[in-house]
Amino acid sequence: MEKLTIIKVGGKIVEEPDTLGRLLEDFSALPGYKVLVHGGGRSATKLAARLGIESRMVNGRRITDADTLQVVTMVYGGLVNKNIVAGLQAKGVNAVGLTGADMDVIRSAKRPVGEVDYGFVGDVQAVHTEALVSLIRQGAVPVLAPLTHDGCGHLLNTNADTIAGETAKALAAAFEVTLVYCFEKKGVLRDEADDDSVIPVITPALFRQYVDEGVIQGGMIPKLENSFSAIEAGVRQVVITQASAISGQTGTVIVKE
Amino acid sequence: MEKLTIIKVGGKIVEEPDTLGRLLEDFSALPGYKVLVHGGGRSATKLAARLGIESRMVNGRRITDADTLQVVTMVYGGLVNKNIVAGLQAKGVNAVGLTGADMDVIRSAKRPVGEVDYGFVGDVQAVHTEALVSLIRQGAVPVLAPLTHDGCGHLLNTNADTIAGETAKALAAAFEVTLVYCFEKKGVLRDEADDDSVIPVITPALFRQYVDEGVIQGGMIPKLENSFSAIEAGVRQVVITQASAISGQTGTVIVKE
Repeated sequence: MEKLTIIKVGGKIVEEPDTLGRLLEDFSALPGYKVLVHGGGRSATKLAARLGIESRMVNGRRITDADTLQVVTMVYGGLVNKNIVAGLQAKGVNAVGLTGADMDVIRSAKRPVGEVDYGFVGDVQAVHTEALVSLIRQGAVPVLAPLTHDGCGHLLNTNADTIAGETAKALAAAFEVTLVYCFEKKGVLRDEADDDSVIPVITPALFRQYVDEGVIQGGMIPKLENSFSAIEAGVRQVVITQASAISGQTGTVIVKE
Repeated sequence: MEKLTIIKVGGKIVEEPDTLGRLLEDFSALPGYKVLVHGGGRSATKLAARLGIESRMVNGRRITDADTLQVVTMVYGGLVNKNIVAGLQAKGVNAVGLTGADMDVIRSAKRPVGEVDYGFVGDVQAVHTEALVSLIRQGAVPVLAPLTHDGCGHLLNTNADTIAGETAKALAAAFEVTLVYCFEKKGVLRDEADDDSVIPVITPALFRQYVDEGVIQGGMIPKLENSFSAIEAGVRQVVITQASAISGQTGTVIVKE
């Protein structure tokens, strides 16, 4: 099976010219088939503030009312996505920017109102890989914005980690997929205070042990649970690392066993 | 040769829910291969105003400084484009939103500074049809935003009429192309005061005659010159009509002779 790398980068990296420039370099240098998934939350918050729209977050997720949906559609689908695409084209990468609505690649359902009404936020229901696989095999490099659609004409704000994970799972039927989650640290750390205490490999058994010992806690727990779910669904490996390390793929590798 | 219809619609039509809804209906009903090219100037002006950015127009073209480029990237590439794509998907049209940067479909050069410095405005240099033709033959329907790129990482604001015309010319090698320019009137009028005085057919000879007689004047002259240039380059016919008439293709037909 041919290899495919899916890189997920957060807003901070793609929103500052310096870090974006370095990311585009590193991503361009990555050999083989690849997909980039990006965030853009900081720019969305900034634009919302300039427009007098309040940004409300619950559990790290943006409450997306109608005005906020317009903001994220402009920022994620337009500003961030198209600047990445133009930047990659300049480096000879044949990028194509896509939301879930484009060629119906990612269909989602508006999150039901529970204790929190998240508004126009989508939970991924299906990744239609046919168009993606065809583009990738033709040499195009999909750049996915964190927006999906419900198939009834509505765009929905969708978590970029989830888009990366679900896309990785779906593409695992066609490629040997490595999913790389970039964040600010070098990997999952044994000691939060020591940047060099990266745990090189985590298996399900080690994960349970680290959680029991309190070594792994907080927001890292759902991130790793998502990673194991991807592995279970056929993704070859998940790597958690810094954006600057995507080509070397150092960091923490999450494997089945 | 298989037929392809390229529909160009201005900002006014795609920016109001009512007229957009009707356009999506009419465009969905259009048989065969098709491409939609849209504007979005009014929304760009509105967003710019909300952000305290002055919109300056010279000869109907927007002066595009760095801040304005961000605005049009958000509005054309994000807000307008992605809402059209989601709307078409809801009608079963497999739309894919593209700027010229996506898959390098339209390369342009920043307009040289002459009497006017238009800023980040692009003059189309090349339409790369390979990716477009491949998408179209796979059943995808490109929705083109009025943005291109220079191949060096810069997006450029680009006139939607020009994008439609140049795309029509380039695709004429692969398809029998009909190019439809939608505007507010039923067609080119013999008498501006009489909405029903549509000139049904204009040939180059008739065009010269109408210009001499003062029947055709003002902004319609460059529009028709562009239309004849498209015809000369192999486009089968150009139609100037109302958005509501795109499926019937009534209006003014511009033909070679």
